[in-house]
Amino acid sequence: MELKVQPLQIKAGKYKVVLNTEDARELGVHAGDRVQLKDHSYLTAIVETGDMIPAGTVGVYQECCEKLGKVCPLTIKLVPTSRPNSVGFIKKMMDRQKLTQEEIYQIIQDMVRENLTEIELAAFVTTSYIHGMTSDEVEWLTRAMIDTGEKIEFDTHPIMDKHSIGGVPGNKISLLVVPIVAANGLLIPKTSSRAITGAAGTADLMEVLAPVEFTAEEIKTITEKVGGVITWGGATNIAPADDRLIRAEYPLSIDPRSQLLASIMAKKGAVGADCVVIDIPTGIGTKVPTMDEGKKLARDLIELGERLGMKVECAMTYGASPVGRTVGPALEVREALKVLETMQGPNSLIEKSTGLAGILLEMGGAAARDHGKELAMETLRSGKALNKLKEIIEAQGGNPNVTHTDINPGEHRAELAAPADGYVIEFNNKRIVEIARLAGAPTDDGAGVWINKKKGEIVKRGEPLITIFADKGWKLTNAIKNAESDYPIIVEGMLLERVQSVRVI
Amino acid sequence: MELKVQPLQIKAGKYKVVLNTEDARELGVHAGDRVQLKDHSYLTAIVETGDMIPAGTVGVYQECCEKLGKVCPLTIKLVPTSRPNSVGFIKKMMDRQKLTQEEIYQIIQDMVRENLTEIELAAFVTTSYIHGMTSDEVEWLTRAMIDTGEKIEFDTHPIMDKHSIGGVPGNKISLLVVPIVAANGLLIPKTSSRAITGAAGTADLMEVLAPVEFTAEEIKTITEKVGGVITWGGATNIAPADDRLIRAEYPLSIDPRSQLLASIMAKKGAVGADCVVIDIPTGIGTKVPTMDEGKKLARDLIELGERLGMKVECAMTYGASPVGRTVGPALEVREALKVLETMQGPNSLIEKSTGLAGILLEMGGAAARDHGKELAMETLRSGKALNKLKEIIEAQGGNPNVTHTDINPGEHRAELAAPADGYVIEFNNKRIVEIARLAGAPTDDGAGVWINKKKGEIVKRGEPLITIFADKGWKLTNAIKNAESDYPIIVEGMLLERVQSVRVI
Repeated sequence: MELKVQPLQIKAGKYKVVLNTEDARELGVHAGDRVQLKDHSYLTAIVETGDMIPAGTVGVYQECCEKLGKVCPLTIKLVPTSRPNSVGFIKKMMDRQKLTQEEIYQIIQDMVRENLTEIELAAFVTTSYIHGMTSDEVEWLTRAMIDTGEKIEFDTHPIMDKHSIGGVPGNKISLLVVPIVAANGLLIPKTSSRAITGAAGTADLMEVLAPVEFTAEEIKTITEKVGGVITWGGATNIAPADDRLIRAEYPLSIDPRSQLLASIMAKKGAVGADCVVIDIPTGIGTKVPTMDEGKKLARDLIELGERLGMKVECAMTYGASPVGRTVGPALEVREALKVLETMQGPNSLIEKSTGLAGILLEMGGAAARDHGKELAMETLRSGKALNKLKEIIEAQGGNPNVTHTDINPGEHRAELAAPADGYVIEFNNKRIVEIARLAGAPTDDGAGVWINKKKGEIVKRGEPLITIFADKGWKLTNAIKNAESDYPIIVEGMLLERVQSVRVI
Repeated sequence: MELKVQPLQIKAGKYKVVLNTEDARELGVHAGDRVQLKDHSYLTAIVETGDMIPAGTVGVYQECCEKLGKVCPLTIKLVPTSRPNSVGFIKKMMDRQKLTQEEIYQIIQDMVRENLTEIELAAFVTTSYIHGMTSDEVEWLTRAMIDTGEKIEFDTHPIMDKHSIGGVPGNKISLLVVPIVAANGLLIPKTSSRAITGAAGTADLMEVLAPVEFTAEEIKTITEKVGGVITWGGATNIAPADDRLIRAEYPLSIDPRSQLLASIMAKKGAVGADCVVIDIPTGIGTKVPTMDEGKKLARDLIELGERLGMKVECAMTYGASPVGRTVGPALEVREALKVLETMQGPNSLIEKSTGLAGILLEMGGAAARDHGKELAMETLRSGKALNKLKEIIEAQGGNPNVTHTDINPGEHRAELAAPADGYVIEFNNKRIVEIARLAGAPTDDGAGVWINKKKGEIVKRGEPLITIFADKGWKLTNAIKNAESDYPIIVEGMLLERVQSVRVI
């Protein structure tokens, strides 16, 4: 069928065309089917149908237009074409049949090439969630995710890496772990994420100090020069399938175990990591509520690492309370820098950072077994870690002379006062993140929450429980109002709610 | 967050807005999340993200714009809002928990209101396919599908109805069944579908004779006046959830049993049917390849009917070969009219039509047990069925004086000749449909295939196996080329393929 082209100047994220319902019927295609654009190297596009496009015309989304040439042709010939084989493989999974390595690779390749519709993607993640995958399949999935993206190949080894499962606020430890490890002669090319529902991701933190957007090639160069980087993974094309999977998993609030494992390990595999430590925050309010679940996850990660030729160790950490006393970009960076400069700071931050760094130092052979933490503490205490972080900041294009006193939280501040004397008996991580976000985190650097009182500490009526910082006054107002309407921290003996006798007329 | 409005003048099929990636991040929403449009009766819209919209601006799709008022406001305030509860219920299904009637109703209601994204819809159909549903759940699903659409309530009863599972070409029997039943004083408001991947649906056939697009109210009026209608269901709002479900099932090539059952029975329930006969074509190349599967499907349909207060009987019919000798709108109508006018025509058509009509006549009390078919034959032979069809044609606005000789197939014709003497040993239904479609069916009325030789018949070399008809010459050329390249009918002793010795240079 030959149709007049109407360029749509809208990005669809995929090769897509829109047909009038009548034309679609004549061609025998439905929404979600594929057509080939003949005479144009047989580009395959996904069909939408509707009445926004008159009969005899095909609406062509921007990606497709660009692929058709500098100037979109006036007419194109369309023929119906079959769906990619991947759709059949997804159906096979639904029918409880195991997939081959080749079939999994095909699915992931089509995903990365934006050749699967949202419906097909959703079917894949739903089926993965319901049926799970065998260890073989998870390995193949991980390998496919690595091979369909960019890879960094270092000339020297070992390459160290660190990952956190997430779920605990204030987890700024990468700012300490990376320089400690690099200061001991090991290479650690850390790619990290920005916060989406959190208050600050590692990439958001590092961005307070230096640019974080680098290509895979640049990551390699900087790492080889100064031993480490802390960059935003989103600027690279490492394991791009992960982003596509998240697009379908997030709206369903599911995180199939197979894809959780593959997602973590593919990113490590793509940077050529040999030794990886994985932080598994455990406890109420985290992603891993019990120790048993944490251990199961750890075993799965270690096994998958073995299959991929990586040494993996996992650290179960306490996640029911924030790490340190700060949540939000500037506040967290200030806290981390202060520890590096003065060794002054919260025990939870120092202990956790040196603990995880110590594991890496042992795995990489920089420290003898059981002496990693000692070396990590020594690296911190001696100022070597601080110097290394400065080198990394400089290599990434930031100011190496920065000190913690240069990093200022937002000028608008408000305190949430304790309504009674007593011990802090409950502490709600999620509410703290919510308040920090209302104050402007992670987009406003200066926004966040200073935690004056943590669980178990004693407080007097009127003393601050938390201090909220914001760059913008109106955001502070929203945040403090929200905090006051539902306290994130409960003090023993505090009146939770006053129920009054109300006469209904 | 207050944003400038940019009306998109594109239909999304849902309430949707597009946010710049930055703004989405600040709001803390991802693609697929929902926002409420404040000050506008808190309309909820689904979020897309991208860079086609500048930061500070929100792109508003047409449906949303229209809902906001005659003139789209210049700015709107957005707040993130939670997903509908339905998404949680779908997750519950994934986790193998049974749903309550209320939960199923919520899912279907959100579906009909276009409040579920494609990802959520796909998760629902995938999970339905994998886990199946209990009989209770299927009943609730059917009731929800009925209650979320238009219903017809007749004052007199019983109301008769007929459905075919489909999958066999040339199945024009409704043109005979409906008038036979109505001629015996029973009401039969038949809504039917157009062909999408087939060569002609019942609605496509009837449209050759009269208009088929009527509202539920009009269907009621015409049925009460002349006893029956044959209309296109797509013009009504009967069981609209079905269309939404198909949108997600079709691209995955799945047809979850629970939804197959609910889809059929909801359409019958919505027109207030008391007695329903269901045609289950069985055999190679149909949707129900074996008798055992057919019987299982029949039992499920009968049980669901009982739960809904409908009497259901199923007829397993031979589906491996077309019904009659014609495939395509005009050809099929001509064949059906000729039988009504003269009792001359293929045995397969007469037997099947009177068989199914007979069951309805017995169910509705117009014939004694085991005497339905006899009465149906008599109704046909006496010309009462023909007169009734003419009344129906007239009531629907067509010409009641039409005879089969008025209905002419396309003027362009070509024969596919038998390449050898022998018996027809294989007959490929799907290829016949493909050839009819290439010739222009179902959009070109005159296009189709006349089957000169059916399975088991004897043919001489050079005699026609099929005759292809088309309204347009170029379509005929395509169809005959295709037929010659891969014969839809195999004659015993015919050379299937000649493999030549080829020297590769």
